[in-house]
Amino acid sequence: MSKNKKLVQEITSMDVDFAKWYTDVVKKADLIDYSSVRGCMIIKPYGYAIWELLQSQLDSKLKETGHKNVYMPMFIPESLLEKEKDHVEGFAPEVAWVTHGGQEKLTERLCVRPTSETLFCEHYANDIQSYRDLPRLYNQWCSVVRWEKTTRPFLRTLEFLWQEGHTAHATAEEAQEETLKILDIYSDFCENILAIPMIKGQKTDKEKFAGALRTYTIESLMHDGKALQSGTTHNFGDGFAKAFDIQYTDKENNLSYVHQTSWGVTTRLIGALIMVHGDDSGLIVPPKIAPTQLRIIPIAQHKEGVLEKADELKRQLSQIVRVDLDDSDKSPGWKFSECEMKGIPLRLEIGPKDIEKGQAVLVRRDTREKIFISLDEVNEKVLQTLEIIQKELLEKARIHRNAHTYEAKNLEQLKSILEETPGFIKGMWCGDRACEDKIKEETGATSRCIPFEGESIGDICVCCGKPADKLVIWAKAY
Amino acid sequence: MSKNKKLVQEITSMDVDFAKWYTDVVKKADLIDYSSVRGCMIIKPYGYAIWELLQSQLDSKLKETGHKNVYMPMFIPESLLEKEKDHVEGFAPEVAWVTHGGQEKLTERLCVRPTSETLFCEHYANDIQSYRDLPRLYNQWCSVVRWEKTTRPFLRTLEFLWQEGHTAHATAEEAQEETLKILDIYSDFCENILAIPMIKGQKTDKEKFAGALRTYTIESLMHDGKALQSGTTHNFGDGFAKAFDIQYTDKENNLSYVHQTSWGVTTRLIGALIMVHGDDSGLIVPPKIAPTQLRIIPIAQHKEGVLEKADELKRQLSQIVRVDLDDSDKSPGWKFSECEMKGIPLRLEIGPKDIEKGQAVLVRRDTREKIFISLDEVNEKVLQTLEIIQKELLEKARIHRNAHTYEAKNLEQLKSILEETPGFIKGMWCGDRACEDKIKEETGATSRCIPFEGESIGDICVCCGKPADKLVIWAKAY
Ligand SMILES: [Zn+2]
Ligand SMILES: [Zn+2]
Repeated sequence: MSKNKKLVQEITSMDVDFAKWYTDVVKKADLIDYSSVRGCMIIKPYGYAIWELLQSQLDSKLKETGHKNVYMPMFIPESLLEKEKDHVEGFAPEVAWVTHGGQEKLTERLCVRPTSETLFCEHYANDIQSYRDLPRLYNQWCSVVRWEKTTRPFLRTLEFLWQEGHTAHATAEEAQEETLKILDIYSDFCENILAIPMIKGQKTDKEKFAGALRTYTIESLMHDGKALQSGTTHNFGDGFAKAFDIQYTDKENNLSYVHQTSWGVTTRLIGALIMVHGDDSGLIVPPKIAPTQLRIIPIAQHKEGVLEKADELKRQLSQIVRVDLDDSDKSPGWKFSECEMKGIPLRLEIGPKDIEKGQAVLVRRDTREKIFISLDEVNEKVLQTLEIIQKELLEKARIHRNAHTYEAKNLEQLKSILEETPGFIKGMWCGDRACEDKIKEETGATSRCIPFEGESIGDICVCCGKPADKLVIWAKAY
Repeated sequence: MSKNKKLVQEITSMDVDFAKWYTDVVKKADLIDYSSVRGCMIIKPYGYAIWELLQSQLDSKLKETGHKNVYMPMFIPESLLEKEKDHVEGFAPEVAWVTHGGQEKLTERLCVRPTSETLFCEHYANDIQSYRDLPRLYNQWCSVVRWEKTTRPFLRTLEFLWQEGHTAHATAEEAQEETLKILDIYSDFCENILAIPMIKGQKTDKEKFAGALRTYTIESLMHDGKALQSGTTHNFGDGFAKAFDIQYTDKENNLSYVHQTSWGVTTRLIGALIMVHGDDSGLIVPPKIAPTQLRIIPIAQHKEGVLEKADELKRQLSQIVRVDLDDSDKSPGWKFSECEMKGIPLRLEIGPKDIEKGQAVLVRRDTREKIFISLDEVNEKVLQTLEIIQKELLEKARIHRNAHTYEAKNLEQLKSILEETPGFIKGMWCGDRACEDKIKEETGATSRCIPFEGESIGDICVCCGKPADKLVIWAKAY
């Protein structure tokens, strides 16, 4: 029991210091480790297994909707990065520069891709000739680098893993349709798989992507009341097409510029998982993204027949769920704590008395509810309970978010809400950049988005008091 | 028909210029494209789909044998790279150096990983404490960079995709066992999935990996008689463990160094596929790695009922194979050529007369054999034929390799064989590095390996004539 306590005691309580709790959890749940490379993380097997499940499930959705995977070079020549003016201004300050290859100094610097619009555009300019070549629906899974000053595992790292979709279309309408379609795919994915409810909306001009016409976002609320931008899609219009000369001949043999989009989600989503579902005992991983959905923990495993039964259950359950068996020589208490720390959604306890009675005990990670089940109905009960956990995690997160969504009529209200009960704050906005800047400066909150489900909670700007017809969600954000 | 001819005529014949044939095929089969980034390739959807099939099938084998995926940073600080002497000497001359992050000059240069031994070692030094932590069986899929002067798609590129396994074991025996186990997995994978026969053997000291105790290799023979190193596994002994201080306490509470291995295969394997199976009509992809295993080409598709039937067959076959349907408005001749260029193993032709007779025509890509089949037996015949193709491609490659494997007793023989009929050349070797150097210099051939299936074809060195008991396979290589 002392070891058991120790494992748990080593985590800071989230109410005491949320940031510390977060870094404790990523380490203790064995998601990552640090290395001597500043701001980069080692994603350990457990963390990477979550990423693989995320990747394979999202990849299926993208393939079902006609997207194809490709791989672009990781380097971008400086001259290529500079082709689109807004884009280079946005990214040049935060890229890593390769200046030497082997012993020689390069004649032109190469940056390690912070994102690959320029490479896709160069390729499309060569590869697209006629309307028959459209749409081009490409995606790639890779790592990218942005030279951040302060970093935090999963949330902001020098290097991170992501997918970046890059598409080219014949018309502005199709590009807009794609931009919104992907936003829906992201939002559905986050809700159904990660059990995180999302608000969909448009970014203000201040917050949009460097070079984009319009940027859309899905925003989620963390346990501490801060927002996390969880995925973005961008409609570029024909801006990049003009900068890179990507033209096609249409059916009437006229030359036209293509209309483009790009979109991405990153390892950040794992950060969201942690901060939405976790608690003071560690991680809570929704079943659909859990590398281990059920862990079997034998009780009094030295007693005759216990390990055999546990092993039999493991083989049986492995047909329907991702299951493992902890038959190590650690104490049950230690095993329970570790199972909780890793956020395994369900554990099954079985000991000599259970076997005698023909039963087992299921314990839910999220509610800690103990469910006594007959061994005849194990499969059914496990599947059922995992489904319930998946559903209730989403529900719980939605209730938390709704309970932390507020309205502010003026700057004073906005400030006091942020100080006392941080969360999403709805406030009307006049559309003036100056008001966004002022709110940021005085409160630390940024405009998260103009939500699609637009309502009106007034007609004057929360900042300047002038007429306003846009509802904005304001929040402090990661 | 003129378009059809054109597509084919644009490829150089392999007998005229093998190198040109190769680059023609990678472009025309839509595997890759070039970009403005020197020496790096764009892997297009068709090429990347082959890589995804390769990756998922090999990944399964590695997971089945207990290996877990992780992700390490892409950067290595110069001081970390320098920790193991042989390793840094081997790699430092060919790495890309990041010297600036954003606007600031870095205090220490970072290289873009050419391979990740140093990062894994640093991690293991932190992470491994006791015998309970062993073995550590980690793998990662990523891209690496080596600053090559001359490059060729898939075979030698500045950046390439690969998997790199890095393991740590309690004993020298276990490390050796792992090194050979992985070599078997690679060899079986190449034979069963890529239909490429491999020779397994050990590298000479000259050819072994920088920092390794022993390097093992699988070597294959290309259509032009050149060898291709297709995968390597390295036993490091405790050399890296000593350089990085990776120690564990054993059951008796003594401190011991771990024993390590590393191993990898790369996108190079796609180059092998092309050069082993391809012909003057383009690529030939073995069914198990083919993104499209069967393409349906309707004949006289404007005639009533043809497209409907073709579509029905596609839906039916999609349950059992990777199938597509070319219902574009191109001519059947053009479609046949494209199907051949992409190396789709099997095509199914169906026209009005076939439908009347209740039949279809299967055409094998490898032999061009036409097989008339009844529509009742489509599923069965398709599966059967794909199996036969997979088997016969391997057989054909094995026959080609065996027919191009020679024996040489002395340097003159070695030279004349290499000039007249290049291939694998067996020759005895005294073990002296000077002989390897001389052979390289005078003939261009290198020692590919000392094969496990060692035979003796003499007792004097093919180069110096002194006593020799090692059989070496010599060849010119990619
Ligand atoms: Zn205002
Ligand atoms: Zn010799």
